[in-house]
Amino acid sequence: MTNAPVVFLTDFGDSHYAGQMRGVVLGIAPGVPLYDLTHAISPQNIVEAAHVLGESVAAFPAGTVFVCVVDPGVGTVRRGVAFRKDGRFFVGPDNGIFTLVAAGGVGEAAAIENAAFFRQPVSPTFHGRDVFAAVAARIAAGTPLSELGPPAGALMALGLPTPAVKEGRIDGHGLYADRFGNLVTDVAAALCAGGAWTVLYRGRRLRGVKRTYADAAPGTLVALAGSSGRVEIAIRDGSAAARFRIKNPSRERVRFLKKMK
Amino acid sequence: MTNAPVVFLTDFGDSHYAGQMRGVVLGIAPGVPLYDLTHAISPQNIVEAAHVLGESVAAFPAGTVFVCVVDPGVGTVRRGVAFRKDGRFFVGPDNGIFTLVAAGGVGEAAAIENAAFFRQPVSPTFHGRDVFAAVAARIAAGTPLSELGPPAGALMALGLPTPAVKEGRIDGHGLYADRFGNLVTDVAAALCAGGAWTVLYRGRRLRGVKRTYADAAPGTLVALAGSSGRVEIAIRDGSAAARFRIKNPSRERVRFLKKMK
Amino acid sequence: MTNAPVVFLTDFGDSHYAGQMRGVVLGIAPGVPLYDLTHAISPQNIVEAAHVLGESVAAFPAGTVFVCVVDPGVGTVRRGVAFRKDGRFFVGPDNGIFTLVAAGGVGEAAAIENAAFFRQPVSPTFHGRDVFAAVAARIAAGTPLSELGPPAGALMALGLPTPAVKEGRIDGHGLYADRFGNLVTDVAAALCAGGAWTVLYRGRRLRGVKRTYADAAPGTLVALAGSSGRVEIAIRDGSAAARFRIKNPSRERVRFLKKMK
Repeated sequence: MTNAPVVFLTDFGDSHYAGQMRGVVLGIAPGVPLYDLTHAISPQNIVEAAHVLGESVAAFPAGTVFVCVVDPGVGTVRRGVAFRKDGRFFVGPDNGIFTLVAAGGVGEAAAIENAAFFRQPVSPTFHGRDVFAAVAARIAAGTPLSELGPPAGALMALGLPTPAVKEGRIDGHGLYADRFGNLVTDVAAALCAGGAWTVLYRGRRLRGVKRTYADAAPGTLVALAGSSGRVEIAIRDGSAAARFRIKNPSRERVRFLKKMK
Repeated sequence: MTNAPVVFLTDFGDSHYAGQMRGVVLGIAPGVPLYDLTHAISPQNIVEAAHVLGESVAAFPAGTVFVCVVDPGVGTVRRGVAFRKDGRFFVGPDNGIFTLVAAGGVGEAAAIENAAFFRQPVSPTFHGRDVFAAVAARIAAGTPLSELGPPAGALMALGLPTPAVKEGRIDGHGLYADRFGNLVTDVAAALCAGGAWTVLYRGRRLRGVKRTYADAAPGTLVALAGSSGRVEIAIRDGSAAARFRIKNPSRERVRFLKKMK
Repeated sequence: MTNAPVVFLTDFGDSHYAGQMRGVVLGIAPGVPLYDLTHAISPQNIVEAAHVLGESVAAFPAGTVFVCVVDPGVGTVRRGVAFRKDGRFFVGPDNGIFTLVAAGGVGEAAAIENAAFFRQPVSPTFHGRDVFAAVAARIAAGTPLSELGPPAGALMALGLPTPAVKEGRIDGHGLYADRFGNLVTDVAAALCAGGAWTVLYRGRRLRGVKRTYADAAPGTLVALAGSSGRVEIAIRDGSAAARFRIKNPSRERVRFLKKMK
């Protein structure tokens, strides 16, 4: 039997904090394979983490145990949770990081309370290592969620903005800037397909939502149907985040107007 | 039997794009071990990727499946290819990224056309995940190249500059700047061994190509026989790329003059 | 039986230098699992590496083989060493990188001399790949340390500063800045627990050493008992390293004063 993989999502970058989490899992569940979804979430950016996780889970097989640690409230009253959804497991702080994956409801969910499964002593500032990595290893090794603590009830959900969709007009928001400086928006590309749309961003007017970078000239701004299924604002062979000095992607606004016939 | 490892070379950095590729491989070939060659290729820099791959393959054992994705032309007419060379497998866009590893010819090579092996639906902007990772997983799991599509014929090769070598003089080019800010050149260190050479770079005259950093004083500029077998322009305990504000390494020129006896 | 894991600590970042090390281990010990502690050590910063390693080993299980490469003296007379301590193995240059893990003495230790275990030819500038990765793979595969070379004797130890502790006063030093811009100091949090301390840093007076970020208001400076057991100077939801433009963490000074009753 192949062991269930443990997959990390954190804001730790390539630091020894990520490395120490790996060590803790290895110590508890020696044969469990470890993989990185990403450690490049902007420090303490729960919203970005929630979106990145939501976009990425479908790429992983059932049985995967995701340990998700973007945790500015570590050591406070925020609880830890573990739950199952669609055959995958999720472990982390109940701070909204699971807003998108948990939308529409989850399967079994437990509040993480059983300290017998923690690494001791538990650092008040690093539950990622001492609580969440340790618990993820137990789950990967077969520990039932019910042993971790009582049923979790409803998980915390962030009040994320959603695009305002009217007849012939969509007002969308930026979510995060990706590795290439593309601004990923909350507008589903499917919403603005099949029609002649104009995209307004930072005073520029862009013609339509394109399928590939090649539909734009090098160096030009383009609205693109991204790999997440969302519209992205990109610069071909360049970085929109750098060009427009995007510091807080969630403050960016993108408007879509459908041309009248 | 040990599974064939899948090794990644991309320009995705530590992003969820790299993570999603891992997930797709895991879903198709659960026991296959995954490793990173690097994800730190400069965004969309095919030339850098070609050199880094060319320098690195020999460090990996036969059977390794390299999935190489630096793919600014994704979604356009550029095709995908998979081929074998010296017992290793390579998967990626046929955009020149394989120029160095394929030099001198490859073994069996297939154009990737059989959509039955793709993750569906295929994103027009992320073949790395939906085509190349999926196909690499199949190859690691034993699928013959011949099932992927028709024979590929000749692969695309970049017209890379080569050093101009004359009696007692070599005119070389920069290839890329590495992690330490060293400018890696296209001049083989073997070319300027065994003689008294002067190296000219940015108006400086350097005496000889050194074997180690210790052959230079701290903070000084040095021409060094690098671990790739190429001459590198380095600053001991510093960064040549930062000192000289190298933005486009391929525009850098390095001249070698042999002293007359 | 589960193979012993090989764990990397380097200053190579996410570069092909790290990737090539992975390839060399795979070629020698195909089934050995590989993990990253971190590759984000500041280039050539042996002191930072020594501290990060010292803080992190306890998170990993017995049997782990650490290959540690921050090696500005590569190719010079500095020797390579391999040793065992508390059931874990360590491989790397004897340049002080093992100062903290080796403090108090090590178990069996060998000077790495037996070239039969090296990857040939050995690059004078990349022993991480050709010597240390190769030797780590052998150790993971069961080669006794005694076959690597003669007993090592005493390892090199850096003369690291230690905090000056007097009655009611501690003068500490910065060690490194972490992923979040926290300045990690050499002062054990246990030293300033259980009393009313004032922390002086850059002219600011901070009240006490806090347990969690939540004990400080967002954006404010705070002295914190970090996950390593050391006091850290942090800015909640921000970066102390950025705010104070910390370039050389080891030059930072932090003073602790105990209030008289």
